Amino acid sequence: MSLVVQKFGGTSVGDPERLRAVADHVARTRRRGDQVVVVVSAMGKETDELIRLAEQTSSTLPGREMDMLLSAGERKAMALLCMALHDLGVPADSFTGSQAGIITDTFHTRARILEVKGDRLRECLAAGKVPVVAGFQGVSTGNDITTLGRGGSDTTAVALAAALGADACEKYSDVPGVFTADPRVVPDAKRLAQVSFEEMLEIAATGSGVVAFRAVEFARNHGVPIHVRSSFSWEPGTWVREEDPSMEQPIISAVTHDTSEAKVTVVRVPDKPGIAARLFRSLADENVNLDMIVQNVSQDGTTDISFTVPKADLEVAVGVCRSHAAEISAADVLTDDAIAKVSVVGAGMKTHPGVSAEMFETLADRGINIEMISTSPIRITCVVRAEQVEEAVQALHQTFRLGD
Amino acid sequence: MSLVVQKFGGTSVGDPERLRAVADHVARTRRRGDQVVVVVSAMGKETDELIRLAEQTSSTLPGREMDMLLSAGERKAMALLCMALHDLGVPADSFTGSQAGIITDTFHTRARILEVKGDRLRECLAAGKVPVVAGFQGVSTGNDITTLGRGGSDTTAVALAAALGADACEKYSDVPGVFTADPRVVPDAKRLAQVSFEEMLEIAATGSGVVAFRAVEFARNHGVPIHVRSSFSWEPGTWVREEDPSMEQPIISAVTHDTSEAKVTVVRVPDKPGIAARLFRSLADENVNLDMIVQNVSQDGTTDISFTVPKADLEVAVGVCRSHAAEISAADVLTDDAIAKVSVVGAGMKTHPGVSAEMFETLADRGINIEMISTSPIRITCVVRAEQVEEAVQALHQTFRLGD
Repeated sequence: MSLVVQKFGGTSVGDPERLRAVADHVARTRRRGDQVVVVVSAMGKETDELIRLAEQTSSTLPGREMDMLLSAGERKAMALLCMALHDLGVPADSFTGSQAGIITDTFHTRARILEVKGDRLRECLAAGKVPVVAGFQGVSTGNDITTLGRGGSDTTAVALAAALGADACEKYSDVPGVFTADPRVVPDAKRLAQVSFEEMLEIAATGSGVVAFRAVEFARNHGVPIHVRSSFSWEPGTWVREEDPSMEQPIISAVTHDTSEAKVTVVRVPDKPGIAARLFRSLADENVNLDMIVQNVSQDGTTDISFTVPKADLEVAVGVCRSHAAEISAADVLTDDAIAKVSVVGAGMKTHPGVSAEMFETLADRGINIEMISTSPIRITCVVRAEQVEEAVQALHQTFRLGD
Repeated sequence: MSLVVQKFGGTSVGDPERLRAVADHVARTRRRGDQVVVVVSAMGKETDELIRLAEQTSSTLPGREMDMLLSAGERKAMALLCMALHDLGVPADSFTGSQAGIITDTFHTRARILEVKGDRLRECLAAGKVPVVAGFQGVSTGNDITTLGRGGSDTTAVALAAALGADACEKYSDVPGVFTADPRVVPDAKRLAQVSFEEMLEIAATGSGVVAFRAVEFARNHGVPIHVRSSFSWEPGTWVREEDPSMEQPIISAVTHDTSEAKVTVVRVPDKPGIAARLFRSLADENVNLDMIVQNVSQDGTTDISFTVPKADLEVAVGVCRSHAAEISAADVLTDDAIAKVSVVGAGMKTHPGVSAEMFETLADRGINIEMISTSPIRITCVVRAEQVEEAVQALHQTFRLGD
């Protein structure tokens, strides 16, 4: 008998019919002889609707109250799912983040998990029941309700799997696995049977939203295998787990892309120690999420510093840069929101030189200009014009023969 | 400086605009120099919508999960109200029933309050903030979320007022006070400036939903004055408090009516000790809410037992009676759902004989037949045909000169 954490996203629990289908799925898993802990997100687009309601009511949106408000969403989904399980004769109890013992820090709307107690979940399992836990939420060390921010429900599921010593965390959504590229852009994209934690981190960081980055990070740190699969079928999906050193790694596993960012360039910054540090400290203080940072070599004692940020953070980022421009003697601050990132990811890249050359040639052949480059041992990312990114993805998918 | 608990019902917090109006009202109360604790219901018809969603999902509706589901409603209202208060510069923190320390028994969907701790509310007040508390909910001695059932939010407000030693509990809704009769039936019905707890208990028990019966009971037992008033104006409403012995009591304060019940008659029951007890024990075991019980004098060794029940309980009640009919040698079980109750309530009745005669004459003059009668020291209730009840209310209102 194994223990599995099954996490169902908003679409999977979007209405009474879908909730009953999920209950049926959980009941079948139990009949197979496994113990199940379920984690649910809020139903459908409920979190967005709650945020809209808050914005209609208030212009200040205090974090403590946003968390109290948003945590109502999962509460509905988990209670309804338990009712549907009862209908099938499966005993099930719902637990809030607080009741499940998910202890977080005190940063409202983006809290981090400090500890998972899980005592009530273990008792519930021992009593032969299915614990159904609210994703995305916890209770702070100050006893206030907190939410975990973007990707929070995935993180809850992985954290529970780690704390309870589960054999796997199954993530169910309307996406049946991890693909070699976005199937909407590349029709012959293939589902990957497995990817390593490292590859999945790079894939999550560069555009695929199928599993939240911080959940993958948590899973890697605690060795929790994640099975990404469809809630609409029993087809196997993609296993995310430790790299198996006995197997030959594919050179490239996936091509990802991301159009959600914008580029900021601070022009002709004096090339002296401490200048960049001061700028980036100020950006961090304003909670701007920097992604790629590129600094060119110095020319005539100055350099251009470029970075990408989520479009939502662009205005704040530019404000910070402009207010520092005089202080650091920069000539100007330029922005560009018509960019996109395209990346190739693959663990085999570490032992196969020449991937970057092949990538650059492929883009050059199509007349696609590369504006920024950044690399990791298993990833190469290029910033290109947004309107050329789909062509870039298709070309790279073909070059690296991922559709075969 | 006084401390006041302000309770706002679903209509008062029904949308963002209404929530901002409530926030404004709370802010004004604070500017007047008073400390405020706010209790809110779920927004508008949200509780009904959650119940509908549950019924679409499940046929078993387990109580623990219904409570988890329904408790999401107040959570939204209280978080949004706190946000609106922040916008006005009034610091406010929301608290769930559990966080407020409202400890209940373990009877889901109709829990009773055992204790109100309120430590976090006192801290919140001491910090100069407004605590906004979820009505209708608590946490059981088994650490599960409970709801208090019908009238639960009013009860929360009164219980908090008692626990915190508040000077008054203000109940705000779209009803501006307690009236001498339902203004929809009697256009010249008058708002009462004050009623005693005893009168309010009778008024609540016999038809007016303006304050829940159990909340009035709690208020009487703990000496908490309730001010029933409109959330749409600053007009004074009706004070519900201890009878003032120095003042002459009006003979009749109000005429109430209720069309929500049905009548059951168990025909020709042997008039022996223990027979009625057995029947009513069985009804109690099925959670049937009995209201009026009338037993006629014995004729030829048998008697008819009649009682009224909420229409929703009629089917269960009849089932219980029929299953006992043979056992207790009753001849038949009859039902009638076209009845209504009309009552006159007044503390002065205790010292003024003749009220019942005047009531019966008034009804007889209109050709309204009385089918059952029950009395308390300050109330007389008659069961009449449902289609005659409005005429009965109007006639009695006139007879006792309540519109003057």
